[in-house]
Amino acid sequence: MNPILVEATRGGIVESAHRGALAVVDARGAVVHAIGDIARPVFARSAVKVLQALPLVTSGAADALQLTDEELALACASHNGEARHVATAASVLAKAGLDADALECGAHWPQHEVAQRELAASGAVLTALHNNCSGKHAGFLCVGCMMARAQGRDAREFVRGYVKPDHPVMREISASLQDASGCDLSRAPMGTDGCSIPTFGIALQQLAHAFAKVATGVGLSAERATAAARLRRAVAEAPFFVAGSGRFDTRVMQRLGERVFCKVGAEGVFCAALPEQGFGVAIKIDDGNTARAAEVAMAAVIGALVRLDDDERAFIDTLSEVTLKNWNGIVVGALHASTALRQALPHTSS
Amino acid sequence: MNPILVEATRGGIVESAHRGALAVVDARGAVVHAIGDIARPVFARSAVKVLQALPLVTSGAADALQLTDEELALACASHNGEARHVATAASVLAKAGLDADALECGAHWPQHEVAQRELAASGAVLTALHNNCSGKHAGFLCVGCMMARAQGRDAREFVRGYVKPDHPVMREISASLQDASGCDLSRAPMGTDGCSIPTFGIALQQLAHAFAKVATGVGLSAERATAAARLRRAVAEAPFFVAGSGRFDTRVMQRLGERVFCKVGAEGVFCAALPEQGFGVAIKIDDGNTARAAEVAMAAVIGALVRLDDDERAFIDTLSEVTLKNWNGIVVGALHASTALRQALPHTSS
Repeated sequence: MNPILVEATRGGIVESAHRGALAVVDARGAVVHAIGDIARPVFARSAVKVLQALPLVTSGAADALQLTDEELALACASHNGEARHVATAASVLAKAGLDADALECGAHWPQHEVAQRELAASGAVLTALHNNCSGKHAGFLCVGCMMARAQGRDAREFVRGYVKPDHPVMREISASLQDASGCDLSRAPMGTDGCSIPTFGIALQQLAHAFAKVATGVGLSAERATAAARLRRAVAEAPFFVAGSGRFDTRVMQRLGERVFCKVGAEGVFCAALPEQGFGVAIKIDDGNTARAAEVAMAAVIGALVRLDDDERAFIDTLSEVTLKNWNGIVVGALHASTALRQALPHTSS
Repeated sequence: MNPILVEATRGGIVESAHRGALAVVDARGAVVHAIGDIARPVFARSAVKVLQALPLVTSGAADALQLTDEELALACASHNGEARHVATAASVLAKAGLDADALECGAHWPQHEVAQRELAASGAVLTALHNNCSGKHAGFLCVGCMMARAQGRDAREFVRGYVKPDHPVMREISASLQDASGCDLSRAPMGTDGCSIPTFGIALQQLAHAFAKVATGVGLSAERATAAARLRRAVAEAPFFVAGSGRFDTRVMQRLGERVFCKVGAEGVFCAALPEQGFGVAIKIDDGNTARAAEVAMAAVIGALVRLDDDERAFIDTLSEVTLKNWNGIVVGALHASTALRQALPHTSS
């Protein structure tokens, strides 16, 4: 039974509560802080996109196709489907000699409500480019494009079916995930993600270790360590492209730059790399609530572990102690990290 | 510690799970079935709109203003903000000699994504009529209009501030809620709801008892019993107006008519009246997840308790055992009622 990590209050009482688990691990794999069950496999979902984007760099695709920081950040993104995200995904595909027809992620309306309304008002056609995973998939297709070139094959033909677990592209992506996490994926629970690629059940301790490797490069091959650092820097340079307007990941990395690399996933999963500490972080909220619970928990972790000045601490505090207002702007309640979660983390003097 | 009521599976394992509590109570107040803590106060939120709409009938407003079934159903609604909902809310206000300016619920974009996109594409202005609670508030304003008439006062002036706990209109609404639930609201936790009216912390057992009274009329004054039956019939006649396209409440009542009156609330609260059984039902999901968890649990309750033919059972089964598909239409998982919840309910032979 995992403890409560985040509470939602109203009228002076706890209205709802979110249970979950958290692991903070160093690059050697040692658990530094933990709460709840960190050994149970959890589907990592979109939280591990940076691990799945390593082949985009190690394959040479990022250099050969002259991908920009924006494009590399989008390859690690669950984006809002805003106009700049869509245009950037199209740009990556064009560099690979492909277009939106090659994407196998499916189409959905932009997750960002304003972007959704703007798209509806514009009368433009919804495409797979609007899918929050289109940048990740465009990155996969770049890897496939490099494989096809090396084999002298037609890229468009070669990449078809790239979302399947046994496709050469997806084998390369999964190998990267396995190497970073140290989890034998052939024995792990396997499901299908929202964007149709395989997702694997990996223990939080292993996920946190993977992000400690991303944070430090320790435990990765020199090639993958270089790739991880390049992706972290790209996201720090272009944090809008990893999420978008109003989003936690974008706001935190716009403010803290390379001190935090954090990436949200569906169903309450959230991972982060803290390079200055050399730590990786992995969170799973039992009930799958990402938007409020996992984010509040991650803000509490960042507040407890990352070096912050007073202004930065005040900013992070607004994310770990969230004031809830209603449609008239009246304060009706709050979200906050639980006492149990606070006690599992180092005390901060703020 | 409440048990798991609903599980979300993927790749053959449980990905996320929702804990909660459930009470099924008869008109005498006896607990018929229960699981979890049914004594703890939970904010009833929008699940009790029908109890808050009783004064609309008992005050004589529904007759005096010749409200239709659609308009009465909307007074009990958390609606989608679709064009027919908005027009019906405007119609109720016009009958009371008021307009959208009198609404104090605040404005938000329609919760139904299609309606939101249509509104954005139309270029129309967002108003408080689009708020999912606009029908409830229009009903409150009708009650206020009757009070003003009786006192020979200007209605528009009289109703101002009607959302405040001490306003004569809100006192009447809260008295109805107190009478039905048997909960002393002066001692209950009080918070502010999304639409700015007070919301009270009431035990699930009391909420379920209130809905058993709605189901049977037993335990209510003759006047309130008649009003409850009229509102139930109005919603059964016009179930689109209590929620809207694609919504659980609308779909269930379109199919089962007067056999079920169910009403969803925010933060994982769900109440129902089962007139044939004489039972009331109240559910709270601990983590506040309404859209998938409370609905699946309610469907399991309906499947176990309500008289259904084979086609109706098959329909309800699709709501208690929900297949999850991704953006490509691939089946990726399922939502289902837990074994613990099933065991707390009578066995059905389907």
